[in-house]
Amino acid sequence: MNALTFEVLAKDEGGFARRGRMHLAHGVVETPVFMPVGTQATVKSMTPADLTEDIRASIILGNTYHLMLRPSADLIERMGGLHRFMSWDRPILTDSGGFQVWSLGDLRKIEEHGVRFRSHIDGSAVFLGPKESMHIQRQLGSDIVMAFDECTPYPATISEAEASMLMSMRWAGECREHLPVNDTQALFGIVQGGMYPELRIQSLEMLSAIDFEGIAIGGLSVGEPKEEMMAMMDALAPHLPVDKPHYVMGVGTPDDLIEGIDRGIDMFDCVMPTRNARNGTLFTDDGKLNIKNLRYAEDPRPIMEDCSCYTCRNFSRSYLRHLYMAKEILSSRLNTLHNLHYYCDLMSRARNALEQGEWPEFRNRFLQRYRDHA
Amino acid sequence: MNALTFEVLAKDEGGFARRGRMHLAHGVVETPVFMPVGTQATVKSMTPADLTEDIRASIILGNTYHLMLRPSADLIERMGGLHRFMSWDRPILTDSGGFQVWSLGDLRKIEEHGVRFRSHIDGSAVFLGPKESMHIQRQLGSDIVMAFDECTPYPATISEAEASMLMSMRWAGECREHLPVNDTQALFGIVQGGMYPELRIQSLEMLSAIDFEGIAIGGLSVGEPKEEMMAMMDALAPHLPVDKPHYVMGVGTPDDLIEGIDRGIDMFDCVMPTRNARNGTLFTDDGKLNIKNLRYAEDPRPIMEDCSCYTCRNFSRSYLRHLYMAKEILSSRLNTLHNLHYYCDLMSRARNALEQGEWPEFRNRFLQRYRDHA
Repeated sequence: MNALTFEVLAKDEGGFARRGRMHLAHGVVETPVFMPVGTQATVKSMTPADLTEDIRASIILGNTYHLMLRPSADLIERMGGLHRFMSWDRPILTDSGGFQVWSLGDLRKIEEHGVRFRSHIDGSAVFLGPKESMHIQRQLGSDIVMAFDECTPYPATISEAEASMLMSMRWAGECREHLPVNDTQALFGIVQGGMYPELRIQSLEMLSAIDFEGIAIGGLSVGEPKEEMMAMMDALAPHLPVDKPHYVMGVGTPDDLIEGIDRGIDMFDCVMPTRNARNGTLFTDDGKLNIKNLRYAEDPRPIMEDCSCYTCRNFSRSYLRHLYMAKEILSSRLNTLHNLHYYCDLMSRARNALEQGEWPEFRNRFLQRYRDHA
Repeated sequence: MNALTFEVLAKDEGGFARRGRMHLAHGVVETPVFMPVGTQATVKSMTPADLTEDIRASIILGNTYHLMLRPSADLIERMGGLHRFMSWDRPILTDSGGFQVWSLGDLRKIEEHGVRFRSHIDGSAVFLGPKESMHIQRQLGSDIVMAFDECTPYPATISEAEASMLMSMRWAGECREHLPVNDTQALFGIVQGGMYPELRIQSLEMLSAIDFEGIAIGGLSVGEPKEEMMAMMDALAPHLPVDKPHYVMGVGTPDDLIEGIDRGIDMFDCVMPTRNARNGTLFTDDGKLNIKNLRYAEDPRPIMEDCSCYTCRNFSRSYLRHLYMAKEILSSRLNTLHNLHYYCDLMSRARNALEQGEWPEFRNRFLQRYRDHA
């Protein structure tokens, strides 16, 4: 039994969108899927019960960088692994730590075999490369392990982007060596290449020469205009291996997700629904709603009329605005519950449209309504 | 039908402790009972579902002072009352605002008909007295309304305490005039008198001349030694009307609650379980546990071995310490859930001991174990 098997259940006739199913060590994931981000061994303000019962998340993401620094991968391993530590029995994907280390800017130094940096918690010196990242993700025990790579800066010249991509491809090979094919943890390679389609395709070809269980697209949503992001997905769509899951990292808004599915993407993660919730920004089919706004002070309606989440079933915009203005913890919690429910439910609606052969209609109707109000 | 009916179901033979039942407009409350504090129309970090399903709270407390300033009693009334606003369909007790206004110190001025003060939110001038407090609590629609009183400072001379108590008794009469006996809202009078037993008994007699549905003891837990607090309850116990519920306000630790029940108290409220939870202090039968402590870093046990709360059923002390150190919102939430469950469950165990005629054994065993570790 492989750590990951993937089946395509339905496909949009005229395009790349598909409805799939992933079998992982801790369970089944229906795709397209949104993965809530659980940076520090918790999806902020949510319990596992919220995530399974109300939000119906089937897989969540954990951050190697944060966990290795606090409470440490050694501790999590001794406590039985990340699943047991956070009491989450469904699949987990862990990133490699590469992106967070890269985000440290001047605080890190890139070397032949990885990156040297200082902990943002206590300033101690740390080294993280393909070998270390594989070891840590093995200690965490995630179902999907991400290759350690460098996120190419934006903007970058073509030679900068090429050098960075080639280093990531070399590291990708080292990751596979340190985490050979096994029956509990799948490994995904990550396409880099900046905003240059030819580099992106070259990167994808180099990854195809290595035996990865899935393909991710990295280095997007790093400050580039939305058209450039879509252009990179457009360039890659015809070349992505049809028998493996495709994951675009760190993307995005609800309409980005629909656009991504249209370009053959199966998996998404983003901090937007959780972070925005804490800032009072709520997602609906009619675009974003800022609960701070005075217009909601006595609005008896739920966030979104036909939403089935606990928040919308029980509370008015008026109450949610009060909680936000009063800086109550319950504000973050109820807002997060709605936003994650919205994202996961949107993926469920997309899967349903794909099964029914109604993808183009669903996509067009959604994008028009969402963008009319955005 | 009265707004409150009270029955005594069982009584400790040799003492004052009793097992009772209150019928209120929004449901039945089994006593002795602990009422979680929901200051700003939310028990901090908890949903109504948590409070009913896991914590099994049967009545919560709301704060008139906070709600009148934000979002305002007018707004809550227009949104259908406090129950509907916060989506809580069980009984609510609201305090009068007197204690919070008194806590403002130099920012308030006591007058013949109430207190003039400035809002801590926007500095606007506000006046609150018996008439205003009854009007606001009527707008909120609570099941139990508290009389507007002055909390006697500690320490106070006997003449200061007497003058303060007499003013509160005059205001108590005004409250009853402004909130006559009706079928939806019960009114409780509040015993004052500082740390002088004779004043306390005089206050209780003056309240008995007015037709209140319940009797509260105020002005305790304001900085006095625990022995003085117990001495006041001892002095009052033989004189409390047996056919009405007895409520001691703002008390206390788990052992205070057991001591209070022993002195004939039926109802308690305190911010301790919720506030301490957010500071990482957790309650158990073996006393308090500070989750920050390094000794819990790799402790795989739950907070308390035989606790049935969601937190103890799913998470280790190690994980809870990690959440606290990482300043995660889930820390406040899981800690609060445990502490409130502990307080409400302790009341359930006390009710059970009273029903079984085993109160003295239960009380002694609990106090010995709890204080051995405290």
